[in-house]
Amino acid sequence: MNAPDPLAPLLRELGPDIVSTDAGLRQRRAGDWSGAPKAVPPAILRPRSTDEVSRCLALCHRLGLAVVPQGGMTGLAGGGNPAPGQIVLSLDRLAGIEELDREAATLTVKAGTPLQVAQEAAQEAGLYLGLDIGSRGSCQIGGNLATNAGGNRVIRYGMARAMVLGLEVVLADGTVITALDKAMKNNTGYDLKQLFIGAEGTLGVITRAVLRLHPLPRSRTTAFLSATGFEAGLRLLRRLQSELGGVSAFEVMWPDFYDYVVGHPDTGVAPLPKGQPFYVLTEYEGNDAAADGGRVEAALAGALEAGDVTDAVIAKTEKEARDFWIVREGLALERLPHLVNYDVSLAIGRIGEFAGRCRDALAKRWPEGLSTFYGHIGDGNLHISASAGAAAGNVEHEMDEIVYGIVGDMAGSISAEHGIGILKRPYLSRSRSPAEIELMRRIKAAFDPKGILNPGKVI
Amino acid sequence: MNAPDPLAPLLRELGPDIVSTDAGLRQRRAGDWSGAPKAVPPAILRPRSTDEVSRCLALCHRLGLAVVPQGGMTGLAGGGNPAPGQIVLSLDRLAGIEELDREAATLTVKAGTPLQVAQEAAQEAGLYLGLDIGSRGSCQIGGNLATNAGGNRVIRYGMARAMVLGLEVVLADGTVITALDKAMKNNTGYDLKQLFIGAEGTLGVITRAVLRLHPLPRSRTTAFLSATGFEAGLRLLRRLQSELGGVSAFEVMWPDFYDYVVGHPDTGVAPLPKGQPFYVLTEYEGNDAAADGGRVEAALAGALEAGDVTDAVIAKTEKEARDFWIVREGLALERLPHLVNYDVSLAIGRIGEFAGRCRDALAKRWPEGLSTFYGHIGDGNLHISASAGAAAGNVEHEMDEIVYGIVGDMAGSISAEHGIGILKRPYLSRSRSPAEIELMRRIKAAFDPKGILNPGKVI
Repeated sequence: MNAPDPLAPLLRELGPDIVSTDAGLRQRRAGDWSGAPKAVPPAILRPRSTDEVSRCLALCHRLGLAVVPQGGMTGLAGGGNPAPGQIVLSLDRLAGIEELDREAATLTVKAGTPLQVAQEAAQEAGLYLGLDIGSRGSCQIGGNLATNAGGNRVIRYGMARAMVLGLEVVLADGTVITALDKAMKNNTGYDLKQLFIGAEGTLGVITRAVLRLHPLPRSRTTAFLSATGFEAGLRLLRRLQSELGGVSAFEVMWPDFYDYVVGHPDTGVAPLPKGQPFYVLTEYEGNDAAADGGRVEAALAGALEAGDVTDAVIAKTEKEARDFWIVREGLALERLPHLVNYDVSLAIGRIGEFAGRCRDALAKRWPEGLSTFYGHIGDGNLHISASAGAAAGNVEHEMDEIVYGIVGDMAGSISAEHGIGILKRPYLSRSRSPAEIELMRRIKAAFDPKGILNPGKVI
Repeated sequence: MNAPDPLAPLLRELGPDIVSTDAGLRQRRAGDWSGAPKAVPPAILRPRSTDEVSRCLALCHRLGLAVVPQGGMTGLAGGGNPAPGQIVLSLDRLAGIEELDREAATLTVKAGTPLQVAQEAAQEAGLYLGLDIGSRGSCQIGGNLATNAGGNRVIRYGMARAMVLGLEVVLADGTVITALDKAMKNNTGYDLKQLFIGAEGTLGVITRAVLRLHPLPRSRTTAFLSATGFEAGLRLLRRLQSELGGVSAFEVMWPDFYDYVVGHPDTGVAPLPKGQPFYVLTEYEGNDAAADGGRVEAALAGALEAGDVTDAVIAKTEKEARDFWIVREGLALERLPHLVNYDVSLAIGRIGEFAGRCRDALAKRWPEGLSTFYGHIGDGNLHISASAGAAAGNVEHEMDEIVYGIVGDMAGSISAEHGIGILKRPYLSRSRSPAEIELMRRIKAAFDPKGILNPGKVI
């Protein structure tokens, strides 16, 4: 065996079942699709239990080896990408539903469980997991929590954080913190789980979680509509929330997004004519299957009458609702040359102004480019997918400066839901003050004094 | 002037407007009503701005003076009680609404603002603050957040934590952390605000907050009913949630509570006959004023037909609804001799068994006593008010051992919503492992290395 130096003690103490040096696996674990720097790791640790995670970390801690925790690698910020020489700790074998407690309406899952498996387990019991993101089939619960995932239903159910009742975490030195609470309330000292949620694996490795479930909705109504502009869209959101209660999705698209996406042959559907000032996909999940469709129609009729909405179509079939979502997912954007994606948040009322300023600044700098705006405005979250055009080439850094400059000006956040990872680390100070970053460093030092957990990420 | 030693530099550097040595004020600021140890502080610091809070803390930090932050002093765990010689920092002058942003549906408030003032400001704008507790008129937002208050509507809107979008905090050394976000999403590094929420003033002093508001409900239906037992009550809860959506309150009472309270002349109302196995007060806030009453009636009719509910009355007037709440508030309990109150949480399905075990153990030890059980079971939260009887005297410590012993056995929490303060500090280890308490200590040391902030509380 001519393995590099750190591998010998890992293999000796953990054994070849846990420590994989398989070339294909290592290749696949080199990084995510974000374009952030990646590297083929020398080894992958694949523990099957919390105890094995603890043994892995205790050993790496003793040896002073950097460890990069990995879930489904569907992140968009390089948060799970190893740097050269860093060992990967994969949670993929620590998977499965542990318990569904119907009385408490809780789901206890291991970290490596795919989100969709958890969603389906809830549904089979007549309950509902409020977390949903596009990568549901391959992302894992542990990664969802480590990145505090957002997604399509935040407006109704909150971020991933809002679903966590209990958490089990292994610290850098192998200490296991088991706090698998099933109740919504536990005010006994500092709420430690909140720190691990969204820390992108830099403070501990999540191994199990107790998730809160909601009642399964009895109806779902999906509508696609055009509005006279951003302000009208915002009034529509408040109208629907006030008349219907919990709107479960409210996704908006500016015409630069809509016209490009429905005009592209990859999309293949177009719910409404192009060229309107603003588009909205909204979904209402209710509890009265007989009445809910009529209530949505009445609310939309009110918005039409008020002049905010210019056209609306309600999905008559599941297929039609899926088609609406296909437009919103906008996969055709990936055809744009040198695409750069942003995920920012702002006070809701300022999003219209922000989009306008950003569009103008990018168009002025790259007249041949295209910038598209869309997102979850109910959560204050805007996505931008922009291209400077084929001729401009890769201008990511310059574009970052323009976009994040306006974000900083308008007191926004440079990462609403995607996290910091490596990709946004240079820009953390646009959204966090030196005092905040200093506190983060103190927390990191208190939790992981040797700095072995996902070094180089977040801070 | 013959003030004790630390007062001279405080007065010299902060002036008599900020530093009060008024005897009456000091007397009133000696502690809360919990019965936890209290002491008249030598001085009260009364800053009017974040900058003044910063100056107060920077000075105390330099002098090594212990500081106890105080809000409305409505807590139930002695979290704001000074020990002898400790200076009090009162937030009462740092009060008022700073901004109500209708578009973002957010309320920016100073820490000393009474909860009710914040509720009313939201309501005037046609919006709704989901936080409500009995002491709304005198408790303050800063204290609500520092203790992560729960209350009556957690089942629908979550704990105080769920309402916080942004926070401004002053650290022990006077450093100001201003993170007054208005968006629901901000995944830029560790979510520091989560640590200050519920830390009971031991990690920093909250000075301002941005609170998330909800649409103002258009209807409210309040019902009081009797059920065949705990299991039937739990089935009723799930039925209402499934048929109606967001139930806004679901308060339960065992007959030891109900029969005592409605039988006491202080109460003066009795919505239903005594002697039933289980009572429930439930409230539904909806968005369809014309239809909601009928929907609640239909859901209750289903529960009656299923045999879970034995009797039900729906409030026809606001007065009648308030009377239902008067029963649930159970003020007559305070007439019991040597009353001891508990606030525990458990997995919801285990609450019935827990109440039975607790009642039996207390009745066996003190046959002349009375223990009453009630609470917010939708949140997994049970309150116990117990008396060993007039003859037994003050047996709090022995009673704690019995109750917390069963809580520990059943993997529950010794404080669901009241916090730890001084009163429950000896029992923290019943709900938190040594590894968790060690992590809390490390956080405390990282945030407040000199230990000047609310020393002796929580950990």
